Parts: sequence; structure tokens; C-alpha cells
Amino acid sequence: MIEIDPERLLSDLESLRSFGSVGNGVVRTAFSDVDMKSRRWLVDKLAAAGLQASIDGVGNVIARSEYCSRALLVGSHSDTQPTGGWLDGALGVIYGLEITRAYREAGGIPGVGIDVASWMDEEGTHFSSIGSRSFCGEFTDAELMDSPNIAGERMGALLRHVGLGGVPRSIMDQDRYLGYLEAHIEQGPFLEQAGLRIGVVTSIVGVRNFVIHFHGSQNHAGTTPMALRRDAGVAAIHAAHDLDHLLARSARAATVWTFGDIRFQPGAVSIVPGEAQVRLQVRDADEEFLDSVTRGLEAHIEELGRSSDVGIELESLHDSVHAITMDDRMQRYCVDAAESRAPGKWMSMQSGAAHDAQILATKLPSGMIFVPSIGGISHDFAEDTAEDDIVLGCQVMAAAAEAIMQDAANR
Amino acid sequence: MIEIDPERLLSDLESLRSFGSVGNGVVRTAFSDVDMKSRRWLVDKLAAAGLQASIDGVGNVIARSEYCSRALLVGSHSDTQPTGGWLDGALGVIYGLEITRAYREAGGIPGVGIDVASWMDEEGTHFSSIGSRSFCGEFTDAELMDSPNIAGERMGALLRHVGLGGVPRSIMDQDRYLGYLEAHIEQGPFLEQAGLRIGVVTSIVGVRNFVIHFHGSQNHAGTTPMALRRDAGVAAIHAAHDLDHLLARSARAATVWTFGDIRFQPGAVSIVPGEAQVRLQVRDADEEFLDSVTRGLEAHIEELGRSSDVGIELESLHDSVHAITMDDRMQRYCVDAAESRAPGKWMSMQSGAAHDAQILATKLPSGMIFVPSIGGISHDFAEDTAEDDIVLGCQVMAAAAEAIMQDAANR
Repeated sequence: MIEIDPERLLSDLESLRSFGSVGNGVVRTAFSDVDMKSRRWLVDKLAAAGLQASIDGVGNVIARSEYCSRALLVGSHSDTQPTGGWLDGALGVIYGLEITRAYREAGGIPGVGIDVASWMDEEGTHFSSIGSRSFCGEFTDAELMDSPNIAGERMGALLRHVGLGGVPRSIMDQDRYLGYLEAHIEQGPFLEQAGLRIGVVTSIVGVRNFVIHFHGSQNHAGTTPMALRRDAGVAAIHAAHDLDHLLARSARAATVWTFGDIRFQPGAVSIVPGEAQVRLQVRDADEEFLDSVTRGLEAHIEELGRSSDVGIELESLHDSVHAITMDDRMQRYCVDAAESRAPGKWMSMQSGAAHDAQILATKLPSGMIFVPSIGGISHDFAEDTAEDDIVLGCQVMAAAAEAIMQDAANR
Repeated sequence: MIEIDPERLLSDLESLRSFGSVGNGVVRTAFSDVDMKSRRWLVDKLAAAGLQASIDGVGNVIARSEYCSRALLVGSHSDTQPTGGWLDGALGVIYGLEITRAYREAGGIPGVGIDVASWMDEEGTHFSSIGSRSFCGEFTDAELMDSPNIAGERMGALLRHVGLGGVPRSIMDQDRYLGYLEAHIEQGPFLEQAGLRIGVVTSIVGVRNFVIHFHGSQNHAGTTPMALRRDAGVAAIHAAHDLDHLLARSARAATVWTFGDIRFQPGAVSIVPGEAQVRLQVRDADEEFLDSVTRGLEAHIEELGRSSDVGIELESLHDSVHAITMDDRMQRYCVDAAESRAPGKWMSMQSGAAHDAQILATKLPSGMIFVPSIGGISHDFAEDTAEDDIVLGCQVMAAAAEAIMQDAANR
């Protein structure tokens, strides 16, 4: 029976927090000096726990158990948002460290081990989930080096800049792994509102990102009569208003959509905007529904374009993520572990946030558990989780891991 | 009879254009090095024309005719927008230079002269129309020095930085002036569309600038269900949509309104905006109408605030400008001059753009004429006016100036 050490777990979480700590929060964006430093610290901790640990060519910390042909992969990400919380990602990484130590102390099961990963840039500072994508073989070395980051610079240059030039990447050996487990803070209000302590993830929603472009004519706001304007700004306001109503009419119960940003050019008080962009994101657990929403948006934008002298285009962005359903067996292991450690205090739920597990699930049977976020707050310095819940989450994860490995050894 | 020299006029306009010339346009924002250099050039040209010229403590070029107790004031501004046209403002300044030279060459009228001004920062790079406001006595030295510019820095620091620390300001001697004349490009499409060459300005519209603030809660766009959101961005979209319809219903024929900018905070694709601002400007020639529009906006925003859990405030900005009617007698002089120089080719019209004449008109009988803008374009590198129209405008202005001074001498 794996028994984790609550004090050691909390102490390591505090140590990781110290890298980039600001008030109650953490600033440790992917590939920053402090992120790279924290990864080297993590390599040392995992090596001290008896694993073969290193930073691979894309910045992933990968720690392998030796003397075993099969392993369970446990991980999350240790990079943060620009003004991030201390637990988002870090929690799941330190769970991996603690569970592998506890597993070793418990004696272990011959031939079956635990590998631990901290994926690079889940938060998308440069390239969303580049670490788990790389591990899952989504691109060749040449494709990776040539890929532009969010600022438009090549990833190759960034990787050389942080000292990863020429370092080999770890690519998943699919036959080695029994599956993938990830723990994370919920980042939403549902567990707290329900008075529950563990969430077992059933699915992770798909994300569709769009930019709607409006092309009008820039003009003097005093001397251009209303009838002669081709006002990209007003066109954007009216289109966003209509699309919000359209989405409200077509949404399913758990669909969410967000107008995250609007830009007018030139954005001056006395100038009729010549160009405007609206950013729209839609999330839902059903891929077919997301496809039908996309078609609805396209049809509406086309209709608007026909009836307006302002040009309108809908751009579907490539950073959209497909919805996935978590593996049934892995869900079962998590449910059993939650019920044994926190009887009646858990629920099955969908994840509205994207996670590395969404990438891993395309290659491995994957499971995920959540612990409650106080006030539902995340991506904010105020993010927090009760200590008891942090400890319970690790105990549940350890129990699920043990059952998975036990069953594999018995087969 | 004052006869201007078309070649000298066009040559001086080209010389002024060379300060900050970029392609067909000009970048000569107020207080920039190139703006200060062009003002020193202008002082030299006005001195060579026999006037007592200098740059005053706020950056105005002021040139006074000597040996006269009464004078007509002629001017405009030589600063430009960040990507400005070559004639906006510069035209009226060089008209003043040319007319005072032609007046002197014609012998002049004893005891009556022409003073010429290039006002500082009509375009509001740092402080909208600070030059004409200063000349009209709108603030004391202490108030001026303490005033923040658009970037929030004190004007006193800026004035010292450009070498104007301790330089006295020219304040208007109201008894000296017969009135103020300003020529400007139209900046709109009306003269060109009507096939006319001169506009005589009847009124300059008032401008009301507003910022509408929305205060919601920033949240994760994936994990925050729609029903729990206090989304400042969506509130801004819906309010702007409603206000646009409200304004369309209440507008008079020539009212214009513009949503020049919208900002969401933090403006990220996966974050529900916690704050939003909408910039709205309304222009009309009738002050009472503008007041009633303001009351309508206030009432609507208050109603929206009561029915929403997003906080909403309407801020009325201090840079609003009052509508003014041009002096009847000055309009008459301009009309007579236009009819004598361009029979049947002129019209009376309102100005939708703000001008220094709007400030001067609070102290002096003021008149304004327009020449056509090709394609109605201004505040853009492409801004231009036909050479014939540039020359004709100066001839009309000279004729009006001569009649004003002649009548003053005969009284």
C-alpha cells in the first residue's frame, strides 16, 4: 500500500513555489530563466528519488524508473501564466514526485515502475502544450525548429537561447506505458459549490478559436457624415452582439463562449476605425456540436458580409483543440480510488480547461482528477486550495496508480 | 488691392512641407524636434516679411505688425497628426505669411496691420489647441505648468524640455484686433461632391467625448459557466450596440457619432474580460442638442447599470469642445470675397472638424474659409488639394482681409 508523506509533499510544493514567487502567486512562464532553474531543481529531486531524470530538447523534465519494462506515466506542467497561481500545474508534478518516492518506499512491484513528467509550456506562453505534443510525436525536429512561437520567432532560436540546442527530445515509447495520470486544480467553482473534494474527469472540452476581421475605411470622425462611413468598429460591435445572441440560442447546457478581445485600428477617439478584429472562443465537450457551431458562425458571417459594405471574414485558428473523452478504465481506477479515500465526497465532471492530458489521451489511456479551487479562482495570484484537499488529492492519485500497476503485474 | 504671389505661396508651402516630409505626407507632431525647427524657420520668414516674430512660451509663433494700433489676426497651426497630411494647418499659416507680404507690397493702410500666428498643438498630440487656448487666456502660468499632457506628464516639464522654460507667453490684447481669419482644408467630401471651390464656415460643431467603463470579474474562459460570469466585454458589446441605436434614433441630420476605441482587460483569448472601456464621441452644431444627447446617454447607462451585475459608468471627458457660430460680419466678408473671386463656386457650410477658430471665436469676431480636400481625405499621407484651389483660397482670404481692414480704417 503506497502511503504518501503529506509534509514532504507540502514542503516540495513550497520549494517549487519559491521559483518565481510573487506574493501568494507565481510568475514562472515557460522558458524563462526561473522556469529553467526550477526544472533543474526538479531533475535533482527526481534523481534523488531514484529516477533517471533529465531535461529533454524541448524543455520537458522526463524521469524514468529503471529496471522495469512497463510504467505508469504521471505528470503535469510546472510553467505558469504571466500572473499565475502557485498550484496550477505544479500540483500534479509534485504529486508525481511524491508518489514515485512513496511507491519506492513501499517496496514496489517487480518490473513495473512510475515515470514522471513536467511538460513544457502548457500555458502557451510561446507554443501551447509544446512539451506534451513533442512527447506524443506531433512534429519532427525540423518542423519544431521552424515553428513560429506566439511572437512570431522560430522555436529553434528560442530553444538554442535557453541552452537546449542539440539536446535530444524524449519521444514516447507507447509499449512502455500502462497509461497516463494527471492531477490538477479544478480552476472552476463546481466542487466547492457541491461541497465535494475530488473530481474525476470524464472529458475535456474542445476549444475553437476564431478571429473575425472587419475591413472598412478609416476617416475623420468630424467631417465624415454617417451615410458615407464604412465603419469597421460599429460593424464589429453589431456583429459581436448578433453572434452572442446566436450562440446563446444554439448553446448546450455546458457550452461556454467568450469574446476575449476586440481591437479597433487606429483606435483613436476622433477617427472612424478602418479595421477591427474580434476574438471569439467556443468550448464544448462534443466535437460534432463544435463543428455545427462553426458552420453556424460561418453562415452568419457570410450573410452579414452580403448585407454590409464593410468586409467581414471569419478566421478559424490553428490552436483549436479537439474534445476528448477520458479512458473508461482509467476513470474507473480514479473513481474507485476516490471512493476508497473520500467516500461520497467526489463526483464525475467534465473539464472546461485544456490540459496536457488532452494531448496524452490521443496516445495513451489517460485519467485525470481534480482538487477544489477556493472560490473557483485560477490563473490569478489569489489561486489556492485547502491543504487537506491537496493531501487528499495525492492520496487518491497514489491509490489509483497502485491499482493500475497491481492489475498490470497480475495480468 | 492686395495681390498674392501664387508661386511664392506654393514655394513656401513646399518649404514648410520639407520639415518632417514622409512620402506625400508629413510627420510633424507638436513639440517634436522637427516641429520646433519649422517654427524657427517660420519666425525667420515672418521677420523677413517685416513683422516682429518670435516663439512664445507655449510654442506659438506670433508675428506682430509694427507701427499700427489695430490689426487683423490671421493664422492656423503648423503641427500635424502622427501620420499627417501636408496642408492640414500649414495651408492657413502660409496664407497668413503670404497675405502680410502682399499687403505690405500693396502699400498697406495707415495704422492697420496684419498679425500672423501658428498655434501650438491644434492636433492634440500633448494638449489639444494649447496654443490658441493660451493666447485666449484660458489658464495662468501655474495652471499651464501643472496641466498633465495626454501621456500624464506635466506640461511644465515638456516646455522646459523643448527650451521654452521661462519664455513669456503671448496673451491676446483684445482691443488690438479687428477679428480673426483662418483658412483650412475642408477635410470632408462636400465641396468636391458639389463641384465647388470655396466653403464659408457658418459654425463649428461641438464635440462631446465620453468613456464608458464596465467593471466585471476576470475569470477562466473554460471553467466559468455562462450563468456565473460577470463579463465586462460582453456588457460593453451589448451597451455599445444599444447606444448606437439610441443615437441613430435621436440624431439630427448632421449629427455624427463615433465609437473610436474599445479595450478589454486583460484582452486574452482564454480569459473572461474583467474590465472594458468604450470611447464614444458625439458632434453636432447645436449645444442644446448635445446636452440633451448627454442626458439621454446618462439615463440609458443608469438603466443598464440597474439591470446588470456588471458595473457601468459614463465618464464625460474634459476635452469636449463647445459648438460655436461664426461671426455674422466676418461670414459676410468671406462670402463677398468668395463671390468676387469665385462667382457661383462657393457655399456656406458647417465645419465638422474642430479648429483653433473655435477657441479664438470666444474672444474675437472670427471667420473661416475652406478649400476642397481631394476625395475628402485628411489626417492621412494621401491628403491633398488642387494647386488652383490652394491659390484661389489665398486670394479669397486676401480679399476678405483687405475689406475688413479698409472698413476699419474708414470708420
